[in-house]
Amino acid sequence: MNKVILLNKRPVGKPGPDDFIFVTEEMPVPAAGEILLKAKYVSVDPYIRGRMNDSKSYVPPFKLNHPVESAVVAEVIETHIEGFAKGDFVSGNLAWKQYQVSAGKGLNKIDKKAGNLSLYLGLVGMTGLTAYIGLTEIAHPKPGETLVVSGAAGAVGSVVGQIGKILGCRVVGIAGSDEKVALLTSKLHFDAAVNYKTTADMYTAIKNTCPAGVDVYFDNVGGEISNAVLANINKHARLPVCGQISMYNETKPPVGPLVQPILLTKSAKMQGFIVSDFYDKFPYAVKQLESWFKEGKLINTETVIEGFENIPQAFLDLFEGKNEGKMVVKIY
Amino acid sequence: MNKVILLNKRPVGKPGPDDFIFVTEEMPVPAAGEILLKAKYVSVDPYIRGRMNDSKSYVPPFKLNHPVESAVVAEVIETHIEGFAKGDFVSGNLAWKQYQVSAGKGLNKIDKKAGNLSLYLGLVGMTGLTAYIGLTEIAHPKPGETLVVSGAAGAVGSVVGQIGKILGCRVVGIAGSDEKVALLTSKLHFDAAVNYKTTADMYTAIKNTCPAGVDVYFDNVGGEISNAVLANINKHARLPVCGQISMYNETKPPVGPLVQPILLTKSAKMQGFIVSDFYDKFPYAVKQLESWFKEGKLINTETVIEGFENIPQAFLDLFEGKNEGKMVVKIY
Repeated sequence: MNKVILLNKRPVGKPGPDDFIFVTEEMPVPAAGEILLKAKYVSVDPYIRGRMNDSKSYVPPFKLNHPVESAVVAEVIETHIEGFAKGDFVSGNLAWKQYQVSAGKGLNKIDKKAGNLSLYLGLVGMTGLTAYIGLTEIAHPKPGETLVVSGAAGAVGSVVGQIGKILGCRVVGIAGSDEKVALLTSKLHFDAAVNYKTTADMYTAIKNTCPAGVDVYFDNVGGEISNAVLANINKHARLPVCGQISMYNETKPPVGPLVQPILLTKSAKMQGFIVSDFYDKFPYAVKQLESWFKEGKLINTETVIEGFENIPQAFLDLFEGKNEGKMVVKIY
Repeated sequence: MNKVILLNKRPVGKPGPDDFIFVTEEMPVPAAGEILLKAKYVSVDPYIRGRMNDSKSYVPPFKLNHPVESAVVAEVIETHIEGFAKGDFVSGNLAWKQYQVSAGKGLNKIDKKAGNLSLYLGLVGMTGLTAYIGLTEIAHPKPGETLVVSGAAGAVGSVVGQIGKILGCRVVGIAGSDEKVALLTSKLHFDAAVNYKTTADMYTAIKNTCPAGVDVYFDNVGGEISNAVLANINKHARLPVCGQISMYNETKPPVGPLVQPILLTKSAKMQGFIVSDFYDKFPYAVKQLESWFKEGKLINTETVIEGFENIPQAFLDLFEGKNEGKMVVKIY
């Protein structure tokens, strides 16, 4: 029998284990024009929270009692499609199932020689693309400028900061534990990092770590952390809005200081994006990320949880900040 | 004797007549390398409110007991600078004085043949430049898109909407009286206009007047009006922030729904600007504005107040929305 994870109910506020349900089904059998896939690595990401709501966002909502989906690396077990061989590895947006059939649409083949399969969910997958494209296409950082990134020890944030260093910026990260701060400043070469959980006055902390002000703020979290950074931006600052994890479990529209007066007096730009807006940039961006990785300039940081049955908990742990770097679940 | 208007005190909240004081001084005498100017038209603008505060904004604050300044059209009365002849007209950032001397720096000569001198404070002055550059350089509107402009009957807004029509957009204005709504839809060719003072549910009003959603929102006012528009934006919307007149007299940082979650789910861009950020675009933009004006495609709308002694009140009236189009004071 095949194991599957369905959306059991739509959470109000913080999601919990009961929002998911494990079921079994007959082993799927690929027809002509289909392949059978076995999941190897499943990506869990904050944006999945949005798809659990019954409201339009940039991706359509999951259906109740249907399988949850995310980015998955899978192995081809049986093939009836030319171009896919048994033993090939692919990545794509797939269901949370141990085994599933696919017509091959939207799947990318993975170069087995590159080693670590989970890399294709992280550094050279949507995570790395999001970091690279958001930073270069929206923020256009210049050498010598100061880049602040929130959620800095998370999947996207840890790549954003490293790319900022490659591009010659002063990079300051905001994260939620002393271990994460140490990871950023020692292993990932950030110039400074601030633990927002132990810092009473974030405005002053940003001011002190960014003596020349903030030119680029790559925002993964939103809320009060962002307000503190916004109060420190320079003229012509650029503020890509990549995520708002601190807001995803809010049940009312969140309220805070209006940003328009700040953007106006600073001639600053704030821009939301999703990586799929920049589909045409993917080939170049993947090549650039792979090349920096091979040169040792970009380090892939990940938290690997093991076992299909732990996928929901791995997802829930994102909201507690339990991951360092990309959170993936390895399936045996 | 020469009449001068000084900043008497810094307002807290709403400014009033007491914030200004009239004094007299000896008639200024131009030295070598100077010209004597007589003010003909004085521009009053909402941004002046920001300069009355003792806080850094995009322009430095006025000094207490020093003359207030704004854009002024003046006549050359006496000249000791080659290139400036008696009877020439110039525009520039000048003091609120009947007569003043200048070394000529930052002054632009006005083509007398063009007629209406106040045009150089409005349609082909900073007002028109702000409208044209904010719309074309930040929002890049495409034919068939829907443009909403707030403060639509004001100096900048009335030009933004007309340029939107020239560029092929559906244009919806937001203004504060039925007379202004009538001006927009009859004389200035807006497709629709909403009186925010008599409309209880602005969200629905925008939804109804923008059946295809909002692609560009040119924001002159901020506050609740902007929240209603933001709730109606389309994917990839562009939101130039030109002014926040509803906020200028607030004594506490204004609070409201956070825009980041909306910008994120809509891949939308919000950008503050001041026209001087785009100095290199001025020559082309002035030419374009003049040409549209001569072709009758752009109508210059203005409210002309008469008399030097009425400058402060004309400025104060901006916050009551008493102007239609550009507010100028004619000096005899």
